Amino acid sequence: MSAVTSTTLAPSTLVLGGARSGKSAFAEKLVSDASRKRLYLATAQSHDGEMSERISHHRNRRGAGWETVEEPIDLAGILQAKARADRPILVDCLTLWVTNLMVADRNIDAEIARLCDCIGSLAGPVVFVSNEVGLGIVPDNAMARAFRDHAGRLHQNIAAIAADVYFVAAGLPLKMKG
Amino acid sequence: MSAVTSTTLAPSTLVLGGARSGKSAFAEKLVSDASRKRLYLATAQSHDGEMSERISHHRNRRGAGWETVEEPIDLAGILQAKARADRPILVDCLTLWVTNLMVADRNIDAEIARLCDCIGSLAGPVVFVSNEVGLGIVPDNAMARAFRDHAGRLHQNIAAIAADVYFVAAGLPLKMKG
Amino acid sequence: MSAVTSTTLAPSTLVLGGARSGKSAFAEKLVSDASRKRLYLATAQSHDGEMSERISHHRNRRGAGWETVEEPIDLAGILQAKARADRPILVDCLTLWVTNLMVADRNIDAEIARLCDCIGSLAGPVVFVSNEVGLGIVPDNAMARAFRDHAGRLHQNIAAIAADVYFVAAGLPLKMKG
Repeated sequence: MSAVTSTTLAPSTLVLGGARSGKSAFAEKLVSDASRKRLYLATAQSHDGEMSERISHHRNRRGAGWETVEEPIDLAGILQAKARADRPILVDCLTLWVTNLMVADRNIDAEIARLCDCIGSLAGPVVFVSNEVGLGIVPDNAMARAFRDHAGRLHQNIAAIAADVYFVAAGLPLKMKG
Repeated sequence: MSAVTSTTLAPSTLVLGGARSGKSAFAEKLVSDASRKRLYLATAQSHDGEMSERISHHRNRRGAGWETVEEPIDLAGILQAKARADRPILVDCLTLWVTNLMVADRNIDAEIARLCDCIGSLAGPVVFVSNEVGLGIVPDNAMARAFRDHAGRLHQNIAAIAADVYFVAAGLPLKMKG
Repeated sequence: MSAVTSTTLAPSTLVLGGARSGKSAFAEKLVSDASRKRLYLATAQSHDGEMSERISHHRNRRGAGWETVEEPIDLAGILQAKARADRPILVDCLTLWVTNLMVADRNIDAEIARLCDCIGSLAGPVVFVSNEVGLGIVPDNAMARAFRDHAGRLHQNIAAIAADVYFVAAGLPLKMKG
């Protein structure tokens, strides 16, 4: 019953999509098809009932075969600690991580740089899930504008490093890179 | 002057796109190129002047050759009643249908399931038009968040069933499936 | 040190993308790879600190080799005056131009028609950058809805004329036409 690592999962992958686009399910399938051992790295924190429900919904869908670890802030640290060649890591999701960094008043650009710097030397594959949030009307409030600026820059940086990049809409993946 | 049904129109098609993306015009062309007989199934209701103007704008663009029927709620019922092999149906649009269901306080998941269950056994081709609404900032109010969750799930479900799926931006179709 | 015009830059190009999608950087690279001489046509006006910062950020990234001209309203006029075969023009961005037209209370449809009418006969290549803004929830206020309607129609019209159309997400270009 040893874990089988497929050759089809790239060292690093970015899965971008809108709300309810099926991006998480697609990313989970990518990882599940590649390996029997897999680690789910949740950036979410259960602030309210709505979020708890989403987390529970995701957990039920993933089913067995997943270890779970939660880390709202130190993504680079936990990825370096947990990465293993025989166990891909799914990070869900980067936009929530950006929110957590903003709430914690961290230096976002510095944290993005730290994350990007570690990706190339991880001991095993990683798949990042993130929300594309920049395709609507300019938000009224400055915080929301800052958030989508951070998210957009993060996506550009990760996409430049990642071997594979997918854009998911209506559950259907469009390969942008790889 | 018999209706000519092209072999190029799939049994079921989803055309997704943003506001003013040209998705309706593209879908109308798909249907018009396939058949001289065609049915326009409008989910819109004329609540206000803005909506009336859009409906009138769409009607003028479609021109002759279209029968029109309006059904804000019971899509599965009207599709089963109206589907014919020699007359494709254009449903415009699904997101307005979701809004109508929410206003009427229907069980959205149940209605989505009813719609999806009927698609495979319709007597003729159907093209669904819908708005992608999940690529902006998370909306402030819970109703809008619920709406985009319903819309996203609906799109995933329809896209899983549909033979062809297009994403339209700036009037240009990108084939996601088919 | 004569300007070299590459054969790869189309007579007219539209680069669409979300906020912080990397669309401007991609468009600048398109133009820079094609020619040593290039003109940056800014539609932005420095209304506030946030905008000034963005303009300065863009200017620093472009670096040397660019002439800059600012024109918030009369795009057709300035394009006709400035177009030259050996110097591509980058227009950044069309959505800001729409905003400027709305603020100045111009007839938007007429201005869009004027712009589109001139594109086919310009003496040199032009690349338009614009924000896709129609993929979020319907905005609450009528002005924002009017804005995204104008922007969407503009994109459809330009995309119908342009030889090449790209959609950029996370810094990655997806060719929609050309």
